[in-house]
Amino acid sequence: MAVYTEVADEDLRTFVAEYDIGTVVSCKGIAEGVENSNYLLQTDRSNFILTLYEKRVNPTDLPFFIGLMEHLANQGLRCPTPLAGRDGARLRSLCGRPAAIISFLQGLWPRRVSSAHCASLGAAMADLHLKGLSFPQRRPNSLGPKAWRPLFDLEAHRTDKVKPGLAAFLRHELDHLEKHWPTDLPVGIIHADLFPDNVFFQGTEVSGLIDFYFACTDFLAYDIAICLNAWCFEDDGSFNVTKARLMLSSYQKVRPLSAAEFNALPILARGAATRFLLTRLYDWLNTPPGAFVKRKDPLEYERKLRFHAEIDGPGGYGLEYHSLAAGEL
Amino acid sequence: MAVYTEVADEDLRTFVAEYDIGTVVSCKGIAEGVENSNYLLQTDRSNFILTLYEKRVNPTDLPFFIGLMEHLANQGLRCPTPLAGRDGARLRSLCGRPAAIISFLQGLWPRRVSSAHCASLGAAMADLHLKGLSFPQRRPNSLGPKAWRPLFDLEAHRTDKVKPGLAAFLRHELDHLEKHWPTDLPVGIIHADLFPDNVFFQGTEVSGLIDFYFACTDFLAYDIAICLNAWCFEDDGSFNVTKARLMLSSYQKVRPLSAAEFNALPILARGAATRFLLTRLYDWLNTPPGAFVKRKDPLEYERKLRFHAEIDGPGGYGLEYHSLAAGEL
Repeated sequence: MAVYTEVADEDLRTFVAEYDIGTVVSCKGIAEGVENSNYLLQTDRSNFILTLYEKRVNPTDLPFFIGLMEHLANQGLRCPTPLAGRDGARLRSLCGRPAAIISFLQGLWPRRVSSAHCASLGAAMADLHLKGLSFPQRRPNSLGPKAWRPLFDLEAHRTDKVKPGLAAFLRHELDHLEKHWPTDLPVGIIHADLFPDNVFFQGTEVSGLIDFYFACTDFLAYDIAICLNAWCFEDDGSFNVTKARLMLSSYQKVRPLSAAEFNALPILARGAATRFLLTRLYDWLNTPPGAFVKRKDPLEYERKLRFHAEIDGPGGYGLEYHSLAAGEL
Repeated sequence: MAVYTEVADEDLRTFVAEYDIGTVVSCKGIAEGVENSNYLLQTDRSNFILTLYEKRVNPTDLPFFIGLMEHLANQGLRCPTPLAGRDGARLRSLCGRPAAIISFLQGLWPRRVSSAHCASLGAAMADLHLKGLSFPQRRPNSLGPKAWRPLFDLEAHRTDKVKPGLAAFLRHELDHLEKHWPTDLPVGIIHADLFPDNVFFQGTEVSGLIDFYFACTDFLAYDIAICLNAWCFEDDGSFNVTKARLMLSSYQKVRPLSAAEFNALPILARGAATRFLLTRLYDWLNTPPGAFVKRKDPLEYERKLRFHAEIDGPGGYGLEYHSLAAGEL
C-alpha cells in the first residue's frame, strides 16, 4: 500500500504545469507497490501515473531506471514511459522527493494466475531481455548473491524466532549457493521483480510490464528463475509443471535458452528463492507495529526454496532441454 | 489505506458486465478511505469507482446510503451516484461482499485547508442539508451522544495509557454533554464525517462531497460542529476564527441558522470533538501491529475538546449571531 507522501493541490498544479499534459482533474493515491508513492493523475487530456520516489529507492539509481524505461518503450516494449517536461527533464522534484510523471498502462494484474498468463509472460520476458541488450547503461544487482550473506547476518540472531531451524537451513543454502553459483551465463538487463502485480494483462495477453525499480544487469536466466518462483507455485505450495513448461516454451520461441542456461535453472531458482526469503524475513522482522504496509510471509519462500533444493535437475520441473529446444513442449 | 479485498479479473469482468458501462481497461486500488475497499475502475468509456463494502459498514444500512446518494444526485448535489445495472439494481455482490459501481467525481481534496476552502464548504454543506430534507428514509446516528458512554466504557481501563488523566477528563466531559445536550434543534440528513478528505475541490470551489457512509438523521447544526473541528483548527492546535466565520457566513446565506442553532454550536462542537476523540482512541488501542491502516492521533481531538470546553459561548469562535444573521461577516 503505497502513499507515503501527501501532495498539496497547489504543489501538484505547479508540478503538472511543467508538462504539456493539460490541467489536473483528479489525483488519487494508489494502494499498490511498496517502494514509492504512486498517484493516478487524471488531467483534462488523459490518465497518468505520478510517482514520488521514497527512501527505499537510491536517488543515484533513478537516471538508470528512467533511462531504461524510456529505452524499452522506444524499442516498442509496452512499459511505463517517463514523460519529458517542457524543459526536457523526465525527473524533477515534488514535496522534497524525486518525482516523475509516467504514462498510464492499460490492463489488470492477475490475482489468480492461469497457465495462459504464464505462457504470455514467457514471451514478454524474452522480449524484454532482447530489447534490453541495446541499453548502454549497467547497474549491478544490489540484491544478487553477494548481498545474501550480509543480509542474512543482519537478522541471523533472531531468524529462528520466525521458525526454529530456519537459520541453520539458510546457512546451509548460502554455503551451497556460494559454491555452485554459475559464472558464465548470458548477461543483460533483467527486471528482477517480475511478480504478478508487476505484469498487466488484457485477457490472457500481457499488456505491459511495470515497476522497473529493481532492474539491473545480471544473468538473463535469473529473471526466469524469479518467475518460476513467483508464477508457477500454487497456493498449497505445489509446483505447477504445466505453467513452467508454458512459460519456458514461449520464452524459448522469442529468445532461445542455451543448454547451460537451462541446466542452471535449479540453482538460479534456489538463489532467487533465497533472495526473496531473505528480504521478506528482513521486512518481517523490521516492519514496525502500525506500519501501513502488508508484510509478506517469508515462509512461503522457505517452502519454495526447499522444493528447488530437493530436485535433481531441471527435469524436476518436468522439463527436458531437447524437447524445449525442439519446440516440442 | 483501503484495499481489503483483491478482486480477480474474471470476477471483475463478470461484475462489470452487469452494467452498461463498457469493458474493463484497468482497475487500481485507491489508498484512501478506511472503511471500504475502493478501486478506480477505468472502462473503454469512462472512469468509475468500484466500492466493496467491508465489515465496518452494516449491510442493512446500505440501502439507506445508496438511496441517499441517488436522491442527492437527483436533486443536483455533486456527489457520487451509484449506477444501476441492467437489472436496475444499484447494489450487488462481489467477492462475497456487497458492492456498487459509483460515478467518478472530479476534483482534489485539500491537503492544506485555506479560508477559501472553508467558505466554499459552508455553502456546500448547507446545500446538502436542504437537499436532504426531502429524502424520506431515516437512519439514527449510531455514533451519536447515546453511543459515547458505552464506547468510552469499552476502553476506560486503559485510556490513561494513551495519556495520564484522559479517562477522568473524558468522564467529566460525558457528564457535561449528557446534561446539556440540546433536544429541540432542526433535524435532517447530515453527512457526519465531512472531513477535508471527503470534500473535493476544483481550485477553491467545492466540486463534490463523497463518502456518505456515516450519513444519518441528526441535528443539522451538528454537521457544522463536526466541520468546526475538522476544518478550522491549524496544525499547531490554534483555532482559526477567519475560517469559522467564512464557513458559517456562507452556510447562513444558503440555509439561515436559527439563534438556537447558533447558540448550541459550542456544546455541539464539544460533542463532536468527544465523538472523534472516542473513536480514534478506540481505533488507536485496537489497531493490531502490522495492520495497514494509518492510525489517527486521538490526542488531536483531546486538544480540540479542551478548546470547546473552555470557551464561554459562540463568541469564543469570534462569531456573533446578530452580525451573522445580518450577513455582516
